[in-house]
Amino acid sequence: MELLKQRILTEGSVRPGGVLKVDSFLNHQIDPILTDQIAAEFCHRFESARIDRVLTMEASGIPVAYAVARQLGIPMVVARKRHSVNLDGEIHAAEVASGGSVIVAKKFLQEGDHVLLVDDILANGFAMQTLISLADAAGATVEGIGIVIEKGFQEGGHRLRNLGFRLEALAIIDTMDETTGQITFHD
Amino acid sequence: MELLKQRILTEGSVRPGGVLKVDSFLNHQIDPILTDQIAAEFCHRFESARIDRVLTMEASGIPVAYAVARQLGIPMVVARKRHSVNLDGEIHAAEVASGGSVIVAKKFLQEGDHVLLVDDILANGFAMQTLISLADAAGATVEGIGIVIEKGFQEGGHRLRNLGFRLEALAIIDTMDETTGQITFHD
Repeated sequence: MELLKQRILTEGSVRPGGVLKVDSFLNHQIDPILTDQIAAEFCHRFESARIDRVLTMEASGIPVAYAVARQLGIPMVVARKRHSVNLDGEIHAAEVASGGSVIVAKKFLQEGDHVLLVDDILANGFAMQTLISLADAAGATVEGIGIVIEKGFQEGGHRLRNLGFRLEALAIIDTMDETTGQITFHD
Repeated sequence: MELLKQRILTEGSVRPGGVLKVDSFLNHQIDPILTDQIAAEFCHRFESARIDRVLTMEASGIPVAYAVARQLGIPMVVARKRHSVNLDGEIHAAEVASGGSVIVAKKFLQEGDHVLLVDDILANGFAMQTLISLADAAGATVEGIGIVIEKGFQEGGHRLRNLGFRLEALAIIDTMDETTGQITFHD
C-alpha cells in the first residue's frame, strides 16, 4: 500500500533494538483518514473470504480492527490482556509467548465463526499466534490475518505463512538501519 | 440516547460490586454500527465546541474515541498505560488514582490544543481525572468530556461537573440492582 509506505518513510523512525516508531499515525496518535484507507485495503484483499467477525488483541490493533469491522458491518472482538472483573463467566484463554495471557469470552468466539485476525505490527508473531490459539480453542476458522506493517526481517510472517495462513501485510519492511534511519520495503 | 439505553437494558447485566457488564456491544465485543451512532451523538452534542483532538486512555475507550475522531476528521491520541520502548522521548505522565500511570508524547498533546476526552464508562472518574492532568500538563484546553455510560450513583460525574467541565453522558444510570438485575436511568 503505497500511501502507507510513504507515511512510514516520512514519519517513521528506527530505534535501537529493531524498533520501528510509527506513533504519529498508527498506535499512539491515530490518523482516522489513513486508518479508514488501511481498512478499505484489507476489505479489498479479503473480499473473497467469508468473514463474520474481526478479532484483535488490546490495545494498539483496536483502531484498525474497528475500522475493518465497521466497513464490513460485522462485530469486532478484543482479546483482553488480563482477567478483569468485567470478564467473568466462560472464557477461552491463551498464553502470549512474550508474557502474560489473554482471554476472550466464549460467547463472542464460537465454533463456526469465520474470523479475520487484525493487528498493527507483526514481528515475532507472538500476539498473532495467541489469537490463533484463541480461535482454535473456540473452534472458529481463521479466514485470514491482516497486518498493517510486517517486519519482514523477523520470523513471524514466514512462520504464519508456512503454517498455511493467508497473511496480508500492507507494508513489509525488508531492512531498517538504526544508524542511517533508512527503511527498505519488500518488492 | 434511547437506542443505547435499550441495548443496556436488553444486553447489560449487573454484577456484584456495582459492576455493569456491557461486553456484548461496548468493550469486549464491539458493535460498530452502534459505536458510529454513539459517535454521531457526541459530535452533535459538542458541535459548538472547537475540538482538534480526541484523547482517550487505552484500552476500552478506543473504539468510541476513534469513531468520534473519524467523524470529526481529526486525530485521536491514546494515553498509554505503561512506558513502552516505542514511547521514548518527551512525554507527559500522570498517575491514575486506581493505580499505575499513563503517558502521552508531548508532540501529540500541546499547548493550544482543544481536546475532547472520551471514555466508555465513568464511575469514580479516576481515568478521566488522569486525562485532565495530562491535558493540564500539556497546556491543552479540555473542551468537553464524552462518556458513553455514566454510573450516576458514583461520584465521578458530579465531581467533574462541579469542576466546571462540560460532561455529556449518553446514558446515566441512577440505580442498578445486582439481585433483580434492574437498571434505572436518570430522566
